[in-house]
Amino acid sequence: MTNNPQLTANGELAHLLTLEGLPREILSAILDTAAPFTEVAEREVKKVPLLRGKSVFNVFFENSTRTRTTFEIAAKRLSADVINLNVATSSTTKGETLLDTVDNLCAMGADMFVMRHASSGAPYLLAQHLRNTRRDHIAVVNAGDGRHAHPTQGLLDMYTIRHYKKDFTGLTVAIVGDVLHSRVARSEIFALKTLGVPEVRVIGPKTLLPTDVEKMGVRVFHDMREGLRGVDVVMMLRLQNERMQGALLPSSQEYFKVWGLTADKLALAQPDAIVMHPGPMNRGIEIDSAVADGGNAVILPQVTFGIAVRMAVMSMLARR
Amino acid sequence: MTNNPQLTANGELAHLLTLEGLPREILSAILDTAAPFTEVAEREVKKVPLLRGKSVFNVFFENSTRTRTTFEIAAKRLSADVINLNVATSSTTKGETLLDTVDNLCAMGADMFVMRHASSGAPYLLAQHLRNTRRDHIAVVNAGDGRHAHPTQGLLDMYTIRHYKKDFTGLTVAIVGDVLHSRVARSEIFALKTLGVPEVRVIGPKTLLPTDVEKMGVRVFHDMREGLRGVDVVMMLRLQNERMQGALLPSSQEYFKVWGLTADKLALAQPDAIVMHPGPMNRGIEIDSAVADGGNAVILPQVTFGIAVRMAVMSMLARR
Amino acid sequence: MTNNPQLTANGELAHLLTLEGLPREILSAILDTAAPFTEVAEREVKKVPLLRGKSVFNVFFENSTRTRTTFEIAAKRLSADVINLNVATSSTTKGETLLDTVDNLCAMGADMFVMRHASSGAPYLLAQHLRNTRRDHIAVVNAGDGRHAHPTQGLLDMYTIRHYKKDFTGLTVAIVGDVLHSRVARSEIFALKTLGVPEVRVIGPKTLLPTDVEKMGVRVFHDMREGLRGVDVVMMLRLQNERMQGALLPSSQEYFKVWGLTADKLALAQPDAIVMHPGPMNRGIEIDSAVADGGNAVILPQVTFGIAVRMAVMSMLARR
Repeated sequence: MTNNPQLTANGELAHLLTLEGLPREILSAILDTAAPFTEVAEREVKKVPLLRGKSVFNVFFENSTRTRTTFEIAAKRLSADVINLNVATSSTTKGETLLDTVDNLCAMGADMFVMRHASSGAPYLLAQHLRNTRRDHIAVVNAGDGRHAHPTQGLLDMYTIRHYKKDFTGLTVAIVGDVLHSRVARSEIFALKTLGVPEVRVIGPKTLLPTDVEKMGVRVFHDMREGLRGVDVVMMLRLQNERMQGALLPSSQEYFKVWGLTADKLALAQPDAIVMHPGPMNRGIEIDSAVADGGNAVILPQVTFGIAVRMAVMSMLARR
Repeated sequence: MTNNPQLTANGELAHLLTLEGLPREILSAILDTAAPFTEVAEREVKKVPLLRGKSVFNVFFENSTRTRTTFEIAAKRLSADVINLNVATSSTTKGETLLDTVDNLCAMGADMFVMRHASSGAPYLLAQHLRNTRRDHIAVVNAGDGRHAHPTQGLLDMYTIRHYKKDFTGLTVAIVGDVLHSRVARSEIFALKTLGVPEVRVIGPKTLLPTDVEKMGVRVFHDMREGLRGVDVVMMLRLQNERMQGALLPSSQEYFKVWGLTADKLALAQPDAIVMHPGPMNRGIEIDSAVADGGNAVILPQVTFGIAVRMAVMSMLARR
Repeated sequence: MTNNPQLTANGELAHLLTLEGLPREILSAILDTAAPFTEVAEREVKKVPLLRGKSVFNVFFENSTRTRTTFEIAAKRLSADVINLNVATSSTTKGETLLDTVDNLCAMGADMFVMRHASSGAPYLLAQHLRNTRRDHIAVVNAGDGRHAHPTQGLLDMYTIRHYKKDFTGLTVAIVGDVLHSRVARSEIFALKTLGVPEVRVIGPKTLLPTDVEKMGVRVFHDMREGLRGVDVVMMLRLQNERMQGALLPSSQEYFKVWGLTADKLALAQPDAIVMHPGPMNRGIEIDSAVADGGNAVILPQVTFGIAVRMAVMSMLARR
């Protein structure tokens, strides 16, 4: 097994596990492949036969109706047979190990796994297991693992930025909020650096930033107004409600006052700056409604591009 | 927005939100469209390609496997891609507003929403929002909102009556039971009046009838035998079990004695009277098994016609 | 109704309710029909159009994601429309009787029911009801009823044995473990006897064997080593975790020591003996990992054959 288990010996995409270490050519190829799929969604018949007769298993060990739905739509538009397994709320496993569950689904004829898991690294474990057992034709897509990665979210964010800004190499991009607990932020930072964004900023209180975040090649700001000055892209993060209960944060009103994206803070960015959010939004906590619904927001286009990007990933993996 | 948000400027069906205020021509057009769909269910291959490649979202904020299933079957027979979102039991929204959830699903390429919600008016709110945001091509079907309306149930009831009685204009129709808490009853009364039924009766205890029910143009009976005399159609309502726990009603045995439909009470109606029930039935509470399984009952044909009526509504909405 | 409600007057398969009393020709016909379906799973497009436009209802009154998934995959590969009804966790029935629920689904145009129910005999009741109401064209597949039967599991086990051993008539087969609570064991014993296996052994502690098990034509062993001596096939049973809490058994370590299948116990069987398990496995309780992952185990092929066998049953039932 090479250092990069998501690539084949020929350097093609075998699995999508993380954006960390994914070469720029692969990232660009995914975005290029996604472009025509955005047009499928505009058609009368929103379907292409690329995955006809393939069995895609959405295996969610952690509940996430929203993410599961986007993968289900993407797979159905590719004409795949989709099987949803909500392992979080079922008694599927009855004490069986993760790998036994997976082996069973492979034996049922799975072509692709879309996996969400609370433990960082679970999709890696799966990909490694498939390789060790010589079932390399079965692909794994990480739909979010612990605090580790959420690569399709990162990819759809890159697609969105490229769509609105064309070129990555002149941009200043700010990521704002709870970077510490965000699997999205990690995926975004890796992708932005790989695609050549010269300045990536992270903005947030010390308690919500990883201690060694500078090592990822970003500039750190603890003052939001300072951090937003002149940026082309503002990527807001969702504040997990459960953080508010702990000692990490003051009240949500306090948080909004200091770290919420309001029109007057946004005014410090470039006039044509785009505002992104991975959803679901906490209006009045990390983002003001006036901004969320305003002219700079591209939050709903992100969702639309997300379907196309997931179709692109799935079709590239199935092509092997 | 006109007074009737479910019609387009040309008077075509844009959404199905309620039967209240729906013109007779539209009602009749839906019933006419449903007729050939009853034949699809008889075929070897129970499928037509009218909604191929369309994405239909069943968004159920209130649990109802039965109603959801009928819409799922109808959509699949029309060859649509169906996505079930059981929002009642999932953490989809994570504190996000109803309209943010809907905006996200629209961004995923929804063509049609089938919505069940505990709050009266929620599907209206959705239709209004789609209009305000210029997404008029996306249709909304109300699958039951609070105590307000359940229009496809009302329509399938009209289809059933027309099927067995041919003409509405000479009929006496009785609705029996818990009218107060029934969204079905409201939809039925509006449709019956619109289609020209000269006499609609409501029969029930004062505690289970709305105080101003006469204003809907119905005759009120508090004596079941008197109310059933000479009727052509008996529409029973389901007694919600939860009513029994409150102070509204005596025991279920008491209720059955006074308000349950038995063969001897039914004998007061026309000999060829049809007996309807929206299901699920409480045998021995609002209806006796001998009647439910007897020759006058058309309760199972109602279910069959329900699939055809839902196919009709969906195909008319998709045609725009 | 004849003694065998699962056969038509012509002796064809009308329902699959149990393997008890199923003639050898029918059993063999199912296995023969399954063989080409194992190849469908190998194709690029894993689909055949045999059930196109048919409505298959997975009605699970007891939760079982794994079994439901295998039927869902089988039906989708046959191109059926599949409707999953998880009655265990829904409020579908709202106090309605089983037969009313079923009548409603029939009225929605069901072609086939796949039913799992905690009560032994529930699928019989359904088949009988369909016959009594002259809806013989609708087929029932028992996906497990109480402690009674799980015929598709039994069939896939027979398919597996035939695949590896070719001929049943020279075999010694051992079934090991909790036979008392196992619907799988009953189905297996009937099928093995019908297919001509000369020696079927059951191995387990007295507390986990039915008192009259010898009447089924099996040899009983209370010593595992003695029972395994010279066998060609070892069929392990899953130990339900809930048994451990009662007084029936000592600790799971104790159980493993006496009744767990280890390499040294397996060494007493024929060198080419196959080891089977219906899953999900309790590694380290009824089976040692070294055996489960070893060269004699055919546990994952069982799963693969299970899809083909279910496709075979469904296609034979739909052919009528």
